[in-house]
Amino acid sequence: MIIARILGTVVSTQKDERLAGKKLLIVKPINLDGSDQSGYLVSVDTVGAGFHEKVIVVGGSSARLAEGNKDCPVDSAIIGVIDSFEYSK
Amino acid sequence: MIIARILGTVVSTQKDERLAGKKLLIVKPINLDGSDQSGYLVSVDTVGAGFHEKVIVVGGSSARLAEGNKDCPVDSAIIGVIDSFEYSK
Amino acid sequence: MIIARILGTVVSTQKDERLAGKKLLIVKPINLDGSDQSGYLVSVDTVGAGFHEKVIVVGGSSARLAEGNKDCPVDSAIIGVIDSFEYSK
Amino acid sequence: MIIARILGTVVSTQKDERLAGKKLLIVKPINLDGSDQSGYLVSVDTVGAGFHEKVIVVGGSSARLAEGNKDCPVDSAIIGVIDSFEYSK
Amino acid sequence: MIIARILGTVVSTQKDERLAGKKLLIVKPINLDGSDQSGYLVSVDTVGAGFHEKVIVVGGSSARLAEGNKDCPVDSAIIGVIDSFEYSK
Repeated sequence: MIIARILGTVVSTQKDERLAGKKLLIVKPINLDGSDQSGYLVSVDTVGAGFHEKVIVVGGSSARLAEGNKDCPVDSAIIGVIDSFEYSK
Repeated sequence: MIIARILGTVVSTQKDERLAGKKLLIVKPINLDGSDQSGYLVSVDTVGAGFHEKVIVVGGSSARLAEGNKDCPVDSAIIGVIDSFEYSK
Repeated sequence: MIIARILGTVVSTQKDERLAGKKLLIVKPINLDGSDQSGYLVSVDTVGAGFHEKVIVVGGSSARLAEGNKDCPVDSAIIGVIDSFEYSK
Repeated sequence: MIIARILGTVVSTQKDERLAGKKLLIVKPINLDGSDQSGYLVSVDTVGAGFHEKVIVVGGSSARLAEGNKDCPVDSAIIGVIDSFEYSK
Repeated sequence: MIIARILGTVVSTQKDERLAGKKLLIVKPINLDGSDQSGYLVSVDTVGAGFHEKVIVVGGSSARLAEGNKDCPVDSAIIGVIDSFEYSK
């Protein structure tokens, strides 16, 4: 999984019906020092994460194992809001 | 998932029979500021997206969960046309 | 999926038995302008593609959904010979 | 799989219920000479690895095959503590 | 799949029980001209490959389809020893 922060939202009306009601968020992977990585992902929020919160993002087929994503065509899901993380080199 | 825009089409006659009738589009991943990323993907359109529209693209095994792709040998699918997206740093 | 062209072949005698009879080709991903990308893949031909032809290559678990690859330990398959592709920026 | 060393931990209260009780560690991929690679991963420890130990990390759907991860929304798992590794160019 | 050569071995005692008895090798991806690529992988040998031999390596969930890897938490497997490969630009 990666650590990312929530930057924004994507609005789509004409979409796969299994995406109905799902919150599609734009998340930006971050480094351990809190700085942004390049790139971004569109990820399904499954834990009620808030704007600019740091979150855990899972990718690939495991995104379909997140709550509510069973059999959905999604490859990225937010599965946790991060309280804190700590590390030492 | 990623955000991409539709650039073109691929025509193939001699192909896996489960690709019959599928619309294979060339999509280009874009950055949040709308600029192009390098690279491209060939993706199956499953939502009737139009030329140059911005779309949501799912990758990996989840592409087979998109409408009509069950058991198809595809690793990328267009699953939504984007109305708008917004973000703040 | 990606677009690649066929460069060569790999010969292996001591191999997983489910690879028996499979044609293992060396393919090179190309850019939309036809130029080569760096890198290469070893991919199972499932459509009878010819040397130097442009082909559609699928990756990951979906390569096992290509004709004849069921339950095979392969992560890349050629699933179509490209007649043409067109795009506009 | 890759070789990584354990750098730290992630604490998350508001998370997918299938993550309850799982130890989420920050791991840093390393090169064969022991130097750090760029980047990091959040990985589920399934073998009781200790701080700063070198470990084997599996990614993708196979992370769900690690002990205790069945049907969990995780894409990275620590599956072994490394006693030693040796190589010659 | 990719072409790699075998560089070394990884020894792990404290590990997932489904890794018991598996030979974990360090492999280095190579270019078509035989030169090394950067990086390496830890891969399960399933074909009895020898030190410094060139091999075919499969990644992702398909590594679990290699002989003896069913339901194992592995994402890379050696599935063939390469006799030769040939290509022309």
